[in-house]
Amino acid sequence: SGWRQEETSRENESGCVCVAVCLCQAPKSLDSPQGSRSGLYFGDGKRKVDYVLVYHYRRRRASLRGSPGHHRLSIISNGSFPVSGGGGGGGAKKDAQDVRVEQQQDVAVVDVGAADPAEEEKLQIREEFEANLADAGLEIERDKEHKVHGVGFVRLHAPWQVLSREAEFLKIKLPTKKSYELKEVKGFSGKMNAMWRKLNQPFQPKVPQMLSQSRTKFLSHSFSRDKLHLYGAFYKYQPIDLIRKYFGEKIGLYFAWLGVYTQLLIPASLVGIIVFFYGCATVDTNVPSLEMCDERQNFTMCPLCDGACDYWHLSTACSTARASHLFDNPATVFFAIFMSLWAAMFMEHWKRRQMSLTYSWDLSGLEDEEVSGAVHQSLNFFQVSHEPERTGEGVREKLTWRDRLPGYIINISSILFMFSLTFSAVFGVIIYRITTSALMAMSTDPETKSNVRVTVTATAVIINLVVILILDEIYGAVAVWLTELEIPKTETEFEERLILKAFLLKFMNAYAPIFYVAFFKGSLHVLPCSYGFPVNVADISETPFLNFTYRKLKKLYRTLKEKGAAPEESDDQLAKTPQQWDLDYDLEPFEGLTPEYMEMIIQFGFVSLFVASFPLAPLFALLNNVIEIRLDAKKFVTELRRPNAVRARDIGIWYNILSGMGKFSVIINAFVISFTSDFIPRLVYQYMYSETGTMYGFIDHTLSYFNVTNFKPGTAPISSQYDKEVTVCRYKDYREPPWSPLAYQFSKQYWAVLAARLAFIILFQNLVMLLSTLVDWVIPDVPKDISEQLKKEKTLLVDVFLREEKDKLQLIQSLFLKDKDGASTPAALPAQEGEAGPRARCRAASFSQFTRQPSPGQTVKHTEV
Amino acid sequence: SGWRQEETSRENESGCVCVAVCLCQAPKSLDSPQGSRSGLYFGDGKRKVDYVLVYHYRRRRASLRGSPGHHRLSIISNGSFPVSGGGGGGGAKKDAQDVRVEQQQDVAVVDVGAADPAEEEKLQIREEFEANLADAGLEIERDKEHKVHGVGFVRLHAPWQVLSREAEFLKIKLPTKKSYELKEVKGFSGKMNAMWRKLNQPFQPKVPQMLSQSRTKFLSHSFSRDKLHLYGAFYKYQPIDLIRKYFGEKIGLYFAWLGVYTQLLIPASLVGIIVFFYGCATVDTNVPSLEMCDERQNFTMCPLCDGACDYWHLSTACSTARASHLFDNPATVFFAIFMSLWAAMFMEHWKRRQMSLTYSWDLSGLEDEEVSGAVHQSLNFFQVSHEPERTGEGVREKLTWRDRLPGYIINISSILFMFSLTFSAVFGVIIYRITTSALMAMSTDPETKSNVRVTVTATAVIINLVVILILDEIYGAVAVWLTELEIPKTETEFEERLILKAFLLKFMNAYAPIFYVAFFKGSLHVLPCSYGFPVNVADISETPFLNFTYRKLKKLYRTLKEKGAAPEESDDQLAKTPQQWDLDYDLEPFEGLTPEYMEMIIQFGFVSLFVASFPLAPLFALLNNVIEIRLDAKKFVTELRRPNAVRARDIGIWYNILSGMGKFSVIINAFVISFTSDFIPRLVYQYMYSETGTMYGFIDHTLSYFNVTNFKPGTAPISSQYDKEVTVCRYKDYREPPWSPLAYQFSKQYWAVLAARLAFIILFQNLVMLLSTLVDWVIPDVPKDISEQLKKEKTLLVDVFLREEKDKLQLIQSLFLKDKDGASTPAALPAQEGEAGPRARCRAASFSQFTRQPSPGQTVKHTEV
Repeated sequence: SGWRQEETSRENESGCVCVAVCLCQAPKSLDSPQGSRSGLYFGDGKRKVDYVLVYHYRRRRASLRGSPGHHRLSIISNGSFPVSGGGGGGGAKKDAQDVRVEQQQDVAVVDVGAADPAEEEKLQIREEFEANLADAGLEIERDKEHKVHGVGFVRLHAPWQVLSREAEFLKIKLPTKKSYELKEVKGFSGKMNAMWRKLNQPFQPKVPQMLSQSRTKFLSHSFSRDKLHLYGAFYKYQPIDLIRKYFGEKIGLYFAWLGVYTQLLIPASLVGIIVFFYGCATVDTNVPSLEMCDERQNFTMCPLCDGACDYWHLSTACSTARASHLFDNPATVFFAIFMSLWAAMFMEHWKRRQMSLTYSWDLSGLEDEEVSGAVHQSLNFFQVSHEPERTGEGVREKLTWRDRLPGYIINISSILFMFSLTFSAVFGVIIYRITTSALMAMSTDPETKSNVRVTVTATAVIINLVVILILDEIYGAVAVWLTELEIPKTETEFEERLILKAFLLKFMNAYAPIFYVAFFKGSLHVLPCSYGFPVNVADISETPFLNFTYRKLKKLYRTLKEKGAAPEESDDQLAKTPQQWDLDYDLEPFEGLTPEYMEMIIQFGFVSLFVASFPLAPLFALLNNVIEIRLDAKKFVTELRRPNAVRARDIGIWYNILSGMGKFSVIINAFVISFTSDFIPRLVYQYMYSETGTMYGFIDHTLSYFNVTNFKPGTAPISSQYDKEVTVCRYKDYREPPWSPLAYQFSKQYWAVLAARLAFIILFQNLVMLLSTLVDWVIPDVPKDISEQLKKEKTLLVDVFLREEKDKLQLIQSLFLKDKDGASTPAALPAQEGEAGPRARCRAASFSQFTRQPSPGQTVKHTEV
Repeated sequence: SGWRQEETSRENESGCVCVAVCLCQAPKSLDSPQGSRSGLYFGDGKRKVDYVLVYHYRRRRASLRGSPGHHRLSIISNGSFPVSGGGGGGGAKKDAQDVRVEQQQDVAVVDVGAADPAEEEKLQIREEFEANLADAGLEIERDKEHKVHGVGFVRLHAPWQVLSREAEFLKIKLPTKKSYELKEVKGFSGKMNAMWRKLNQPFQPKVPQMLSQSRTKFLSHSFSRDKLHLYGAFYKYQPIDLIRKYFGEKIGLYFAWLGVYTQLLIPASLVGIIVFFYGCATVDTNVPSLEMCDERQNFTMCPLCDGACDYWHLSTACSTARASHLFDNPATVFFAIFMSLWAAMFMEHWKRRQMSLTYSWDLSGLEDEEVSGAVHQSLNFFQVSHEPERTGEGVREKLTWRDRLPGYIINISSILFMFSLTFSAVFGVIIYRITTSALMAMSTDPETKSNVRVTVTATAVIINLVVILILDEIYGAVAVWLTELEIPKTETEFEERLILKAFLLKFMNAYAPIFYVAFFKGSLHVLPCSYGFPVNVADISETPFLNFTYRKLKKLYRTLKEKGAAPEESDDQLAKTPQQWDLDYDLEPFEGLTPEYMEMIIQFGFVSLFVASFPLAPLFALLNNVIEIRLDAKKFVTELRRPNAVRARDIGIWYNILSGMGKFSVIINAFVISFTSDFIPRLVYQYMYSETGTMYGFIDHTLSYFNVTNFKPGTAPISSQYDKEVTVCRYKDYREPPWSPLAYQFSKQYWAVLAARLAFIILFQNLVMLLSTLVDWVIPDVPKDISEQLKKEKTLLVDVFLREEKDKLQLIQSLFLKDKDGASTPAALPAQEGEAGPRARCRAASFSQFTRQPSPGQTVKHTEV
């Protein structure tokens, strides 16, 4: 992606060595773990390759800034350290065996770009960079024979000491042997749980340790290469913990979020199906559609366009009326309320899930700043050199609001301009339809005339598709450009602002046609004597489906392209002995989760915003996601370089976007129900105007009268089969009849219905807001079992702490004895500490008094509490 | 207060010794610090009295549960340890001089209740409690000579070792000598800042160290008894830092919040005054009030009550029309929008202030659980004994939803019942007014008749006051009872739920009359022929003022009572030699901040909810607060026992209540503007009906016609000076005229105006919500300077950490040397650590590796970074 590259050069200009992250993965090692061993280790076969720097000379690849041939320094990493329990192979350091390291990158490739084309300088930068790496304690193995060729790999090994220092620096929580049983639920609910677990069994992925893990926390995991399990069967739960272990927390959170979303789509789909079937069941007893289909009540309707159109009978629209009842019946209103609450419920459910994951992934200690600096964080590893990233920030910090103001102004005006551009495009398509159909209708060729609708629709669809496609691409580029104008301080800030802009623009692009259909189309009704255009073709209802199809096709195209491209490239490389890093480097780089999230959020919009118009939307979203979730997993595992594991405590700005969309959906649903459905007019008729209290007479009530003598010259039907008989035609509006003194003005009914519509919006919006607040309030953010476990952990710590206090003197004595015994290795040096040291220290890192002088015996004693 | 006592007995039943907190303060020590020295120290004159347990035998005091004579064990504390810098007197422990201890209670009295009346058991409990205290390391001095009398004082001294252990346990951040200069703002804004500081100087309270403190953080403060400064001049800023040092964070936050609120009332008052003066300035050019006062346009209005009332001329209501214009003019709408945004701004501003305080008070590390358990936290001191508070929780945790359900049902139904009770009371007062005035109007005595309004209003006011008073007291008790039914798990939960209930009930009690005036009164308009009651007296507009007066009087009464009661009590005690703790014990116990917050929140409601009806509300609130804030401070300093210092990171549930009220105010303001003001009808008239586009004719347009022949029998005026001439009278409503086929039905205008009103509500609500979200989004929660300082602190730590890493081996060697030198006092024992130890440890407590082996030389070296 262009974003990352651009970011790379910018950082370089400010004087600090920066890293662009590309990621790959080693599928081969699955089949022959022994055979690829040489590729995963240094020459000595013992030290694991944790990262690989790739230095290569590219002539043909054009960078975004147009510097055609710049040297690139890349890093490939392999993070499966031998430190993890019973896993890998080399148990070189026994003391670390019970420590599960969080950063378990398998093989990641990191490009280090040098934007300046001067060869000398590049070399210098690279050497300085490598020297800094060595300074930070990393061990380097260079690739002599490749150095003269295009691509050279520099392999890095991070020794245990460096890793533990960094882990401590990032305050990574590590598990201790001190485990405790989670409280088992007893009684009736316990039995229910057991039954549920049994029923659930077939849906659990076949992953080792799933069962033992669910009962006892902090057992050490052995790291196993279970990648194939990640592509499980579609009906099984996702192995979230394994995803997180392999890809890091950020990607783990994405799949967890997707899982929660898909899971919650199930009840929404069910209710949607019920609403749809309610519509099917009541269509034959629904009075308004019966009245419309009743040929005895033969309403002569006014023509729908000037001149060319004829009068028509309402009963010819019978099938449309019946079809619309399926989606527009009283149950739809309750479904809209349900879905608004569903959105609130979804957010709450996700908050809880996130909290559970934060707890079980030990992220609760992760500080905010580190989370917000997630991208930088993953680079800390390479920035221990004293060229601080702050230098760059320092330069930018000096920018005052005067420097920033032009950027912001351009930003806002550009976004507004693009909003209007999108709407202009939509209206352009509509005007195209109107003019084309008007021209074709005037044609004398009867064949042209009969094909008007088909031809106009088909061409409009193509134009629409092309417009969406072009705007989508333009907006993507413009969003990047606009974000750069803002000069955000950190990479995370950059990413968040870019996402927000890209979302706003894509959102408009995706929904503008629907907004038009939902709100503007209905207000096009004017008097039959002055349309100016044919009302019937000013419609783009098919656009949402079109949009959906386009997005699916785009994704399919990309998948096919990737599949086609991959084999070719690997042929070029086959001449050499393919090391693991060569194979990994051939895979597609990982370009961030933004496209994945964006797709799902746009879909969430379809589900929540316009659910009142189409109750089956959740069902289709569910079907799509069940397949999508597995395709995504497959792509991540087999088609992309392994992403750098990035720690994250939440899904960041996406949560805000989701929450904003949930709030927006309330008001949109209120407007859809009150203005585009017949729900309110029906209620008003039944309770205010109907003499019998039933719906009979509703159709007649909604149709106003038009005296055909009031047609303006040229607007009356040119040729009509009704010509002689019609004196008064009907049209759908609440206006005074021709014989009223205020002829054709809005009638009292119009204002009454309008007031009812608006009152409904107020009621709906405030009711749903109140209920959402209640949902928010009733469902605690932290699940009960998690808060209990947190309390328990705290209690354990307190107990240990208090005993420690009492036995302090005794402890110190035993320590002094121990120090004198093992004087060669001071106990305080973490790299050489005994078994108990790092465990006790890491769990209770902030209780410095407690952990300062740990003794193995003491720690074991307290674990029995 | 009844709550705390009740809580005490409940905790006792569950088997653990619990503490009820009463607080007092030592004003005498101000005048003669040397004279009271004997009272502030143990017999040896060296060990400070930190807490005093009071054991006393009371016959006459009835407890809430009705056990008439139970023994009570109380604790008085004196927290001004000699450890604080240049303060107190006894610099016994030099090594601790640079550590500012957070819990600086002066003298606090803590009652330990023993609910069981059996004397033996009480003695046993007391002894066990004291033994536990001694176990925890506290030193006890008993008061032999008083033991046989009614009151006995047991004095406690907390040695340095115990304090440091507890401080570590609570993760209290301590300042280090490692100070850094805060970045000085340069350039234009720097000059502006300096100017502002100079202008501000007279408003700064005269408090030592204010200036040096503002420039350099983490200087050690000397503790000085600056209590008199707390009661500063009304125009000066509050010495928030001193308040916090003396009273603890919780009370500090209250005064800080009150300060922010009062400060933000200044712009609101200014805008309110402008709006009011705009009304004054435009009253003579305002067409509707001119038309009403114009005697040429003499509208004959229909009588306002059946039979007794006569027709009247609209021009007689001229003064009312002019007065109402002052509060109901187009500027009011903008003021309502402004105030809704003001509320959002206030919340944001407070969040920032809270964040600043959290930072400068070093509360950022304070964990959520400790905050939520604030009340328990302050008692931790006495609960290190192994009778854990969890025992009680364990018992309660077993309660399932089945056990809780009845409680919740009773809760909800009771609250609903009390809501309806409040509204019934309001309607009762109205019905009283209607019936009384009807009866009096029918009286033949002309004197009675002329005094109708005065008499009815006066009696109604008294009845209203009594009803409010009774309901207020009942609701207070019912809220406690209801909260107990819920069986909340922790004291904080209990407090929060109680506050929520008490708020809801008080809110209803305070606002029900206003809601009636604002919304129901307007919809009482019915046809003049069937009032059934006189419309003109169905008014309780004076109730809000009444309510306000009542609350002020209640407060005044309490203050007077306290002042009257205090001297008497102290007379009884004068016979003995008055020790400091005797004097302190005579003061009123501190009963929590709930009443203070409640008063302010109710006031905030008046300011935000009904600001559209009365733009001067912020001004009056401001004037009230400027006085109130100082009276509160005086009360806390001189009239109450010194409260236990309680750590808190935020203002808890009050924030949620404020935020909820802010949201509620948006919809209320929307309804007030659209339904109670003439704003919408005027707009509709001007743009839809006025032929000239001006307001001329508006009054005529709003008045419907009534044919006097349509009066029902007995409802026509009995005697009228207009008798013969009137055939048609006018009334204020949008209805069809008598000559219309749909006579007296709502007219088209009615529905149009209704639709406009509702549309305005939707527009207003969503606009304000959008703007509030924008305000929330634009104003960052963390002030920029704070986030910069946090970053700087982190950077300093990182640098230290990295150097430490490099010099590790060297360090260990120097440590071993030091250990052998000073073998008698191991460096790791915190109670005997050298100067550098605790400082370095506490600042970087979580960097255990760094702090494990601190060396004085090393630490000093790094502070120069």
